[in-house]
Amino acid sequence: MIETPSLVDQYCHGVLRTELGLGTFEAQLARTEGPPAPGTTLFDTQTGFAVRRWCPPLLGLEPHCTPARYLARRRELGPLEAGRRLLRGSGITTYLVDTGLPGDDLTGPAEMAADARADAHETVRLELLAEQVADTSGTVESFLANLAEAVHTAAAHAVAFTSVAGVRHGLALAPEPPGPGEVRGAAGRWLAARRVGDELADPVLLRHLLWSAVASGLPLQLHAGLGEPGLRIDRTDPVLLTGFVRATAGLGTDLVLLHGYPYHRHAAHLAGVFPHVYVDSGAALVRTGARAATVLAEILELAPFGKILFSSGARGLPELHVVGARLFRDALGRVLGSWVAEGAWSLADAQRVAGMVAAENARRVYGLK
Amino acid sequence: MIETPSLVDQYCHGVLRTELGLGTFEAQLARTEGPPAPGTTLFDTQTGFAVRRWCPPLLGLEPHCTPARYLARRRELGPLEAGRRLLRGSGITTYLVDTGLPGDDLTGPAEMAADARADAHETVRLELLAEQVADTSGTVESFLANLAEAVHTAAAHAVAFTSVAGVRHGLALAPEPPGPGEVRGAAGRWLAARRVGDELADPVLLRHLLWSAVASGLPLQLHAGLGEPGLRIDRTDPVLLTGFVRATAGLGTDLVLLHGYPYHRHAAHLAGVFPHVYVDSGAALVRTGARAATVLAEILELAPFGKILFSSGARGLPELHVVGARLFRDALGRVLGSWVAEGAWSLADAQRVAGMVAAENARRVYGLK
Amino acid sequence: MIETPSLVDQYCHGVLRTELGLGTFEAQLARTEGPPAPGTTLFDTQTGFAVRRWCPPLLGLEPHCTPARYLARRRELGPLEAGRRLLRGSGITTYLVDTGLPGDDLTGPAEMAADARADAHETVRLELLAEQVADTSGTVESFLANLAEAVHTAAAHAVAFTSVAGVRHGLALAPEPPGPGEVRGAAGRWLAARRVGDELADPVLLRHLLWSAVASGLPLQLHAGLGEPGLRIDRTDPVLLTGFVRATAGLGTDLVLLHGYPYHRHAAHLAGVFPHVYVDSGAALVRTGARAATVLAEILELAPFGKILFSSGARGLPELHVVGARLFRDALGRVLGSWVAEGAWSLADAQRVAGMVAAENARRVYGLK
Repeated sequence: MIETPSLVDQYCHGVLRTELGLGTFEAQLARTEGPPAPGTTLFDTQTGFAVRRWCPPLLGLEPHCTPARYLARRRELGPLEAGRRLLRGSGITTYLVDTGLPGDDLTGPAEMAADARADAHETVRLELLAEQVADTSGTVESFLANLAEAVHTAAAHAVAFTSVAGVRHGLALAPEPPGPGEVRGAAGRWLAARRVGDELADPVLLRHLLWSAVASGLPLQLHAGLGEPGLRIDRTDPVLLTGFVRATAGLGTDLVLLHGYPYHRHAAHLAGVFPHVYVDSGAALVRTGARAATVLAEILELAPFGKILFSSGARGLPELHVVGARLFRDALGRVLGSWVAEGAWSLADAQRVAGMVAAENARRVYGLK
Repeated sequence: MIETPSLVDQYCHGVLRTELGLGTFEAQLARTEGPPAPGTTLFDTQTGFAVRRWCPPLLGLEPHCTPARYLARRRELGPLEAGRRLLRGSGITTYLVDTGLPGDDLTGPAEMAADARADAHETVRLELLAEQVADTSGTVESFLANLAEAVHTAAAHAVAFTSVAGVRHGLALAPEPPGPGEVRGAAGRWLAARRVGDELADPVLLRHLLWSAVASGLPLQLHAGLGEPGLRIDRTDPVLLTGFVRATAGLGTDLVLLHGYPYHRHAAHLAGVFPHVYVDSGAALVRTGARAATVLAEILELAPFGKILFSSGARGLPELHVVGARLFRDALGRVLGSWVAEGAWSLADAQRVAGMVAAENARRVYGLK
Repeated sequence: MIETPSLVDQYCHGVLRTELGLGTFEAQLARTEGPPAPGTTLFDTQTGFAVRRWCPPLLGLEPHCTPARYLARRRELGPLEAGRRLLRGSGITTYLVDTGLPGDDLTGPAEMAADARADAHETVRLELLAEQVADTSGTVESFLANLAEAVHTAAAHAVAFTSVAGVRHGLALAPEPPGPGEVRGAAGRWLAARRVGDELADPVLLRHLLWSAVASGLPLQLHAGLGEPGLRIDRTDPVLLTGFVRATAGLGTDLVLLHGYPYHRHAAHLAGVFPHVYVDSGAALVRTGARAATVLAEILELAPFGKILFSSGARGLPELHVVGARLFRDALGRVLGSWVAEGAWSLADAQRVAGMVAAENARRVYGLK
């Protein structure tokens, strides 16, 4: 038996505070372009089945009960109580919470910590930071100065920056930092054209944000692979980051490649080659459910064991934090356990690697106590 | 035990009516550029081994008997009787038959239905339809008018259209419909240069065919992944279809991505994101044989279970229909069975999903009774 | 039990003759861009764990002993004696040794044969050959004439040529042979700019080397997939070779795609389609360790069984030859054994295929006795 007594979820969001009906709950189970096809439901997915496996027992029901029964029980408890039972039952001891989705529908780190009786820290999303600064800056000069100040301030309290440049524009960005004139020009055009609420997708400004984060020294998380549903997924292949990775080598800032799937073997390769690159082993598991052990094993092919970090990638539903954690623990135990059973690994090594991937690597990279 | 009492083969061809020697039979086992290398045989492939596993018992022989022995028995029975025994032993209850290979070497839907004692329906290949219309049309105007008429007529009796644009040109086609002037120009150039029998590979005309099919409302099958042997396989990566998929969203026409392998995870992703996209789970199994369970499981990662369709992809040899069906049933039973055994899925869910993938999804998409 | 009584390692290098400390040994376990990240070690990789599994028993220690204990024992024996015990314990009966790394730190074929009590043959690396010729040629004309002579001479004693064009430039090379004027121009520019020791990366000259090798009739090994650590790995995807493969079809020269991972399914596809293409099944196993059986099984999906060749890909450490051979044997036995247990393959077929992949295919392709 491989044990993982503590789990650091190195990338997730908060949970919705509102009561959810069958349809609104279902819509949180996947990222799609439109409602389910006639005759189909998003409950009939690996994520849906995993939720039905792991969550009902935490609310006093049988595993695999129907969605309707589960949601009735969830409403009976209320979203706050259901959320607490789920988060506290997930086994996650520390949450790194990306607060970068606009609006305040989702709980933040403090509320997550209280609900889950766990530690929680903030991860700052660069693009939202820039959008917020743009909303309150009148000129290009004030925008850029305020942005620099905002990154500096965020670096003082956050544990990491995160970037969705890959899902806004694709990862085929020029690897070097843009020059100051280039940044001013791009900022001027973007500010002139934008309306409040517009998303930042300008490649020069996205690169400026990446390099501002690199300069801060805080670990930088980069979304790769599964991201915006309608985007061409090959535009988020982490191999496209190779130039940026080379350009940032030796600067003292760690890069963490999130998600990765279906290019997780490519992400693992980069983590194997470059000392400052780490790879996320968790978020893809929530999407692949019963296949989580295989997907995790594919990451464990090339990535050094000191370079792999767990996350749930959960957003909106505390059920997804539960599923992320349970699938990861189960997958890790089964994969490493089978290698021990075959004699490929010693039990002591397997225990040690499990502890590293579950929590210790993240504690070291993010400087957590 | 996961049961699949009925099987709808949503994509296959008919079978050869002629007697086959060892060499001509072997040549049907794979799609290659040239004869086997000296010292090798196409029987030494996953497909060859799968044929030797599943087919000899249907003709009264031991599994894994030698190719020579199997073919002697096949000749003894004659191609018609052997074909009947094989097709009737496949477990397939409905065949959707692509009639789009030129010549009349292969049996059509009516003959397949009689030989197999099963239902059979026609799938019309767009490119052959256009080539046939070109053979009998004198001018650009008559070609385009006759083509529109032919698509309309086909839509009235066929259950689907199928396109090999991906293997003729690659899937990196401009996503929007070509304008009328563009189509006329391309048709003029193609008709002027072509000789009877020439294949259609002009990208404007291929797109015109795709959009004509979309306008018909019939499901449209798109070849992706494994296709023409000598083509660069990355040109058939289904991610290249993302733009076309977005452009056809909400129009009421379903798209079915055939084959997919080795990009089947990409195809499954599209089926997960877009309501009108479906993914084929069968044809790759015939090529990967003993690995079929893993390939199927990779499709089951991201594709919603209501969006996956079985096919054999068989062509020429009734052995390939048998192998497609048996490998699929065996793989589905083992994959879902292992998830039930691990507690990841309930048995009831596994049974329900098996029925959906084996037949019900196809019945709904193609409007079969 | 699937037996592989003899093993032909169709691609490896020699071993270091010098004593190695913990750090210098560790550095040989992976190809990286820089030292391990703080808090991590390259022993915590699949390769590191595989070395600790398979090698200590050959030096009289327990499997999975600590790196420090293993290296102390290695030093006690001395590099020569340790190397002999390891190579003789690997089970490899024939080594094809790429002598194309500059300097003479590594043992050559004769020394390998003596140390291992095995057969050994030379594989000549085209790029080093050209660099050596350039070092001693004064003019473009003499360079090209001497190069032609050197290729001719090498073809008389070597068993294969090997090219690292993929890791020097990427595999997206123009498929046709460059014209004589183009070659002369490129040679002139390269010779004028180069200093002794400079590596050849000019695409015209790389192509000229490839076509010189093709003309010799000797099998040509092409590096694909995992190669230079810092290179964008998608630039070595073997699909990029499709044009070159088509251009060389029917000329009588075999192409062997080395490594392949993470694009090994693409390499296997090419081996399935083109009679003159073969695929390497070994080198990726050393990098993926406990996952070797799965990686091997992925190659066994599309590649005909007569087209798959074993190698260790080892370099520098005799431990890597051991690990390559043991992982391969173990993986092959488990993969084929599981197919026999499921009834998918007959035992006789499995034995036969194991012998082909382990040794017979290589003996046929390279004309070994």
